[in-house]
Amino acid sequence: MADRVEAIAITGLGEIVPGDDLPTLIADALADALAAASDIETLRDDDVLVVTQKIVSKAEGAIVDLTTVEPSAVAIEFARRYDRDARQVEVVLREAKRVVRMANGVIITETQHGFVCANGGIDASNVGPASGSIVTLLPRDPDASADRIRAAIRARLDHDLPVIVSDSFGRPWRFGIVDVAIGVSGLIPLDDLRGEPDADGRIMRSTVRAVADELASAAELALGKTANRPIALVRGASFRRGEARIRGALMPAETDLFR
Amino acid sequence: MADRVEAIAITGLGEIVPGDDLPTLIADALADALAAASDIETLRDDDVLVVTQKIVSKAEGAIVDLTTVEPSAVAIEFARRYDRDARQVEVVLREAKRVVRMANGVIITETQHGFVCANGGIDASNVGPASGSIVTLLPRDPDASADRIRAAIRARLDHDLPVIVSDSFGRPWRFGIVDVAIGVSGLIPLDDLRGEPDADGRIMRSTVRAVADELASAAELALGKTANRPIALVRGASFRRGEARIRGALMPAETDLFR
Repeated sequence: MADRVEAIAITGLGEIVPGDDLPTLIADALADALAAASDIETLRDDDVLVVTQKIVSKAEGAIVDLTTVEPSAVAIEFARRYDRDARQVEVVLREAKRVVRMANGVIITETQHGFVCANGGIDASNVGPASGSIVTLLPRDPDASADRIRAAIRARLDHDLPVIVSDSFGRPWRFGIVDVAIGVSGLIPLDDLRGEPDADGRIMRSTVRAVADELASAAELALGKTANRPIALVRGASFRRGEARIRGALMPAETDLFR
Repeated sequence: MADRVEAIAITGLGEIVPGDDLPTLIADALADALAAASDIETLRDDDVLVVTQKIVSKAEGAIVDLTTVEPSAVAIEFARRYDRDARQVEVVLREAKRVVRMANGVIITETQHGFVCANGGIDASNVGPASGSIVTLLPRDPDASADRIRAAIRARLDHDLPVIVSDSFGRPWRFGIVDVAIGVSGLIPLDDLRGEPDADGRIMRSTVRAVADELASAAELALGKTANRPIALVRGASFRRGEARIRGALMPAETDLFR
């Protein structure tokens, strides 16, 4: 039972470019952080690593040079109407499995992974020089990306550290973005407390907690968007170890009331 | 700029019942925690207190005894069809400003505060003996509840500690609940980074971060739903101080694509 949880930014990871061996670079940065006689001296069983999406996409080459994109008429019209980049709109539409909403300058799509998010998770910031022509796509398989990072850490540090790949998503009904999990390795993204008694002894019928999302949000508080710090260790939270895929945390279209 | 953020459960708060002076009880518990020679010795400028909704509702008497509720025909039919308590369904409908979805056993409503959430935030667990007849409503004015707690702490400890009242909400498209802010005092719930450069020097056009929600989620990791620990100090995050109300973080129905 957690009573203190810390999110600690792991610094030392340099600029990431396509083709980089990110799992090894992360394992090295973590090893250096542990060796630097800070208070993270050794990894613990209640540690989780959160890796923000952009460096994963960059390393894996999940990027598009907008100068190579020829926008469709739909994209051109939507962009003209709402002061958006038609080439970016085109990429969003191409990557979508389904368009959920496209209105008021906003495009919400369902990606092939099953995520429902603005612009299918495709964005322009934080990618390279402020030249405006490179966008990142979501990693093709964020769970597998998390698996590889976890494996590299296990090989380098002999510790099975669960890994979350996170990204910033908006939500309906509330302004602002929060970080959520888009890939997991070694932990179950949902904590299912149904059937367990609450503090008053009442059996909870419907409490399923999205612990991986809360871990992603806690990590983001230690990272921030304007600093170049893409990975954080979150220590002390309660989570269930296990092999799982993020899809288990995503509501299928058939049962979703907001698709 | 944060690089380590901690969420620390504050223990020592006893059972809360209607009529309790919660702000004073919280100020006392916090004072005791500081005095107990733990590592929270003094409050800092980057501290925020997160108080979970249920104790606020209980203290303020925002509860309903279901044995006093006569369900309507709509409630009876919905409950019969989906194995729910008709009296609780009735309370949900009565408290709703608008019903957003009512299908498949799920009721999503917009509350008078402007929140959109399952059952209007009304639930049955964690309230009292496992007798099944007391439900909590959301506090009538969670910002004001946060104000009173902040004032009591300022009076007791001579420190202006921002306060968030939090609750657990589900989301569309993803299973599980996460904690979000339903009331604030002393901090701005959104961090607006538009116009600021990101790590590559690119000016961000649309990054508004729901920092109060992420603080609520981080706090929940240290509290947990099965333990009787309803308040947490979150230390080290970056947030903007100021007088704000949570409504500024809520999307009005007119601009919301999912109402």
